[in-house]
Amino acid sequence: MALHFHVDEIRELIQKGDYTGLSKMLKDSHPVDIAELFGELEPQEYLNVFKHLEFSTARDVLEELDQEKITFILTNIKPKYAALLIREMSSDEVADYLGMLPEGARQNFLHLLKQQDQKDIRALLSYPETSAGGRMTTDFIAFPKDMNAQEALNKLAELAPDAEMIYYVYVVDHEGKLIGVLSLRDLVLSAPDTTLDRIMYTDVKKVLASQDQEEVTRLMEKYGFLALPVVDEEGVLLGIITVDDVMDVVEEEATEDILKMAGTEEEIDPEKSSPWYRARRRLPWILVALFGEIVSGNVIKNFSEALQALVALSFFIPLLMDMGGDVGTQSAAIVVRGLATGEIEPWDIWKNLLREIRVGVVLGIINGAIVGSIAYIWQGMPALGLVVGISMVLNLTIAAFLGTFMPLMWNKLGRDPAVTSGPFVTTLLDIIGLFVYFSTARWILKL
Amino acid sequence: MALHFHVDEIRELIQKGDYTGLSKMLKDSHPVDIAELFGELEPQEYLNVFKHLEFSTARDVLEELDQEKITFILTNIKPKYAALLIREMSSDEVADYLGMLPEGARQNFLHLLKQQDQKDIRALLSYPETSAGGRMTTDFIAFPKDMNAQEALNKLAELAPDAEMIYYVYVVDHEGKLIGVLSLRDLVLSAPDTTLDRIMYTDVKKVLASQDQEEVTRLMEKYGFLALPVVDEEGVLLGIITVDDVMDVVEEEATEDILKMAGTEEEIDPEKSSPWYRARRRLPWILVALFGEIVSGNVIKNFSEALQALVALSFFIPLLMDMGGDVGTQSAAIVVRGLATGEIEPWDIWKNLLREIRVGVVLGIINGAIVGSIAYIWQGMPALGLVVGISMVLNLTIAAFLGTFMPLMWNKLGRDPAVTSGPFVTTLLDIIGLFVYFSTARWILKL
Repeated sequence: MALHFHVDEIRELIQKGDYTGLSKMLKDSHPVDIAELFGELEPQEYLNVFKHLEFSTARDVLEELDQEKITFILTNIKPKYAALLIREMSSDEVADYLGMLPEGARQNFLHLLKQQDQKDIRALLSYPETSAGGRMTTDFIAFPKDMNAQEALNKLAELAPDAEMIYYVYVVDHEGKLIGVLSLRDLVLSAPDTTLDRIMYTDVKKVLASQDQEEVTRLMEKYGFLALPVVDEEGVLLGIITVDDVMDVVEEEATEDILKMAGTEEEIDPEKSSPWYRARRRLPWILVALFGEIVSGNVIKNFSEALQALVALSFFIPLLMDMGGDVGTQSAAIVVRGLATGEIEPWDIWKNLLREIRVGVVLGIINGAIVGSIAYIWQGMPALGLVVGISMVLNLTIAAFLGTFMPLMWNKLGRDPAVTSGPFVTTLLDIIGLFVYFSTARWILKL
Repeated sequence: MALHFHVDEIRELIQKGDYTGLSKMLKDSHPVDIAELFGELEPQEYLNVFKHLEFSTARDVLEELDQEKITFILTNIKPKYAALLIREMSSDEVADYLGMLPEGARQNFLHLLKQQDQKDIRALLSYPETSAGGRMTTDFIAFPKDMNAQEALNKLAELAPDAEMIYYVYVVDHEGKLIGVLSLRDLVLSAPDTTLDRIMYTDVKKVLASQDQEEVTRLMEKYGFLALPVVDEEGVLLGIITVDDVMDVVEEEATEDILKMAGTEEEIDPEKSSPWYRARRRLPWILVALFGEIVSGNVIKNFSEALQALVALSFFIPLLMDMGGDVGTQSAAIVVRGLATGEIEPWDIWKNLLREIRVGVVLGIINGAIVGSIAYIWQGMPALGLVVGISMVLNLTIAAFLGTFMPLMWNKLGRDPAVTSGPFVTTLLDIIGLFVYFSTARWILKL
């Protein structure tokens, strides 16, 4: 990712104290680019740059920085300016920042805010981070239903600088209950004296503050909204969630799924944390695999006489283990992703199982035939070919079954289906697969 | 997912011919909900419902339907009405629909459009589906730079019903080149007589029509835009991509990555396709695993004397194979996802390799110590414990290395890193891991 600025040039301007040149250079730059620049500078350097930003740019840049940089800046500028900046930041960004601070520091910052803002932020902090309430901002626009279009447009122009999303206007009754929604487009297109209740849509899609962010994502994607209102149990409008926040959620959820399926919750950030820390994040599932495979070893041990009698049996262990694992992982990935995107209905357990088992049988027959023939030709033993072939059919069918069943069941129990599907399924399949293989061998080869 | 309507009620109204009741029921419903309802109805039923929708609702519903239903509806309503609907649909939806039709049918539909619209659609159809050009719509708003804010607002109100996104206004020069952007918010907040070039942002983030949709997603997420302009090589504004389309892309790309990492490109849609079709989509990587594991089997065969001398060696094959595979998959998942989200810089191959190798060594030492002790206690042979422990350290280190290296290298070669990381990495690791294990055994146990 190429940086938007030449860091050296900026640094030179700072050292020269040429803040006019700097302002000129940063003028018209996107706050995200300025925040990215800060990542390349020393604290004292970005502090100097920050002090010379225009107020509204400074506020926008602050919203894009990480906790550490925000704290460094806010504690090194005049307290009055810091208070002003925090007051003007959008409430969800302030809450996110404060949520990461220790209790004492949080209270100090909260006292810089107005009474109403303090109340808003405290409310936001009370919801779990991944709930609709935790994701929402309280900087929305709501009007009474008897306001007319012209009044609404005027009021909107007045509120625009502070609101997070001016393109949707929510309509509330005298108790603050959400009763309608209209877009700025609808307002612009209406006769000036039409009251809002005549142009608003009453079929408002909304979420409860306590609902999970996944429901938010689902509704936003389905309807293509730019924002979604969040209400309490009584239907009172509490806040909105905007589409840019939801897009981050979609990415995060997908990443989380991928990492969980691979049996790790290690963070991706390449800058952070020691190998010890990273290893610890990956260890739990590795240990599950370790103890599971001790059981696998025990299965082989129980058949060690057969193995001693025909050492060629061992040549096919990797084949059966690996292919079973692959088919199981495929099925699990399809189910986990299907559940996440809503393509697979969680209650259709039997339908999904049946479909995957049929795929498993087909894959088993194809591969069993190939592998059985290879085993026969390679070792010159038709019976061994039969053993390997039959085991392959059984194993791939079981693999498709377990790969589908585990995440569906886990989901039904209200847990995240992604966690079961990686190391857990493959390890379980190894144990079952080896048992099936050696039992088949003992039965057909009479070992 | 609960349906928004009671299908039975709707059906009853259709059978009674009570279209007033039906209109009342569907009035104020979201087009997405009506489209979802159509999915539950018979063709003749939804055709009847469609005929009684208001024009603008009908057009919006059409944009949400699948190709089959669109075709059924358009060929069973009056051609003039069909033409009117197509003309008013947004250009990217029309292009998506036409792109799926056979050439003859496509030409017939194109002739229903005005000359300019035909040109637009043909242009859209000329870009690959997953490029910025293939994703964009031509229904954007662009004004000359010497227009003033009041004129722009008036013109906007006029264009609003047809434009895809009225909240961003693009500013172009006399050659149609993109020179600035401003939001509706900026317009509303400006003095009426300010010309656009005085309020526009000149640092416009944009993409080339030929760029991949991943670049579009990256920019939209980074900056939190509602739309992104698409230009040609000369900088001429061709279209825009809106955030709701990008959100679909994010989901699709994540799904694609997950499925590829699991070694399948099977579609998730549970309705479609037979087990034979599904099995075929999953077979390629399974076959790679099959032939890879024949090699694994050969490695064991080459050491079969050692195995015959100490059958207990075989008890640890599943352990070494599975744990190596798990660590490799973890590393690969972290790299693949890191590349996709931009957290990992593709040129930092050495830095990433070094980091993962260190994690691999840590995991190897921890697990090697555990597994070595277990092997010693279980089999009562200190030397066997040493063999298993040392092999585990080596295997997990190699696994972390290969799991990181393969996707990074694949990415550098301009290929999708996700495809190498599933079955390919685990199969390769099995071959190497078994060789390391038996070599260590021969060396230490002198077998």
